[in-house]
Amino acid sequence: MKTPSSLEGLINALRCLPGVGPKSAQRMAFHLLQRDKPGAARLAAALDQALSKIRHCERCNSYAEDAVCELCSSPRRDAALLCVVETPADLLMIEQAQCYQGLYFVLMGALSPLDGIGPKEIHLDRLIRRATDGVVCEVILATNFTVEGEATAHHVGELLRQRGLRVSRIARGLPVGGELEYVDSGTLAQAVAERREV
Amino acid sequence: MKTPSSLEGLINALRCLPGVGPKSAQRMAFHLLQRDKPGAARLAAALDQALSKIRHCERCNSYAEDAVCELCSSPRRDAALLCVVETPADLLMIEQAQCYQGLYFVLMGALSPLDGIGPKEIHLDRLIRRATDGVVCEVILATNFTVEGEATAHHVGELLRQRGLRVSRIARGLPVGGELEYVDSGTLAQAVAERREV
Repeated sequence: MKTPSSLEGLINALRCLPGVGPKSAQRMAFHLLQRDKPGAARLAAALDQALSKIRHCERCNSYAEDAVCELCSSPRRDAALLCVVETPADLLMIEQAQCYQGLYFVLMGALSPLDGIGPKEIHLDRLIRRATDGVVCEVILATNFTVEGEATAHHVGELLRQRGLRVSRIARGLPVGGELEYVDSGTLAQAVAERREV
Repeated sequence: MKTPSSLEGLINALRCLPGVGPKSAQRMAFHLLQRDKPGAARLAAALDQALSKIRHCERCNSYAEDAVCELCSSPRRDAALLCVVETPADLLMIEQAQCYQGLYFVLMGALSPLDGIGPKEIHLDRLIRRATDGVVCEVILATNFTVEGEATAHHVGELLRQRGLRVSRIARGLPVGGELEYVDSGTLAQAVAERREV
């Protein structure tokens, strides 16, 4: 009764953001109205803009404004390498690490039968078409090391190997700067099992 | 170079929200695009709606869609009592506590000369006109117990007392359920100094 309905509406709408509960939504709404009206207007415009312009790149399935994204159409990338990641955020992380010069394919998820996410939902048919274009030689599986990510990597790896492609998985082990004393036993066991000659 | 500009724009725009840094802004943007496009559209509409509709109530200075808000125009509230709070969020807290039947005045801030917030910015002239309408008998100062809130309460209290109004301050002391062992010494000292007969 006490809150104007458009304020109430704004507070409720802010709750669609991940990690924002009723209390932070209220704080955000008051902050925008009290101290940052231009920011609120900019946010509304940016949301509309993004919703109308952003679609999936035909080649890598990541977000793009054109049919093929800038990265996929860059002549400076190594088209023989294809890195498979779960999300555009993962792609960004690898780009920020500046350790990879090939191209990508973004699954937009990982296999998770309980959540109804099967091969179709993560676009495996498109990935296979993409990887068997005759240019790609090696596919690097960079899905997460979670149960879903591992299952996805296993399944995708099988499919691609059957089609004669070289398939690799990013390495598991201790993080840079990691100390044996503080690492979990699962990681340590993997690091020992997957040791490499020096 | 790798992120489409409208996605980049959305991530930047989300950073106007309080407590949202570059990483959470990115997470929010991806979440909206990947899992909650209707939510994003709703949020954009709610922002536009709120920006165009919400203004300040002429009487209490809180947010309202009409010239006078629902609370101020309610005949069930006790017009002889006026509670002064810093923000609309504080007003909501008192309303949720269901402990008060009077009316409010929202300062939209607290005196803070270093931040350039003086008597004019917290609308003290309007508060005085509001409090001296001949109906208000007692003004309850419910600003925060921070340095700024206390200074504001002191200043406002002086101004209103000069005009013959009864002025009170909400009580300081131990919170409900509070234990002496864990309360800070400042609060404990105040609770002892402001003890009341039982």
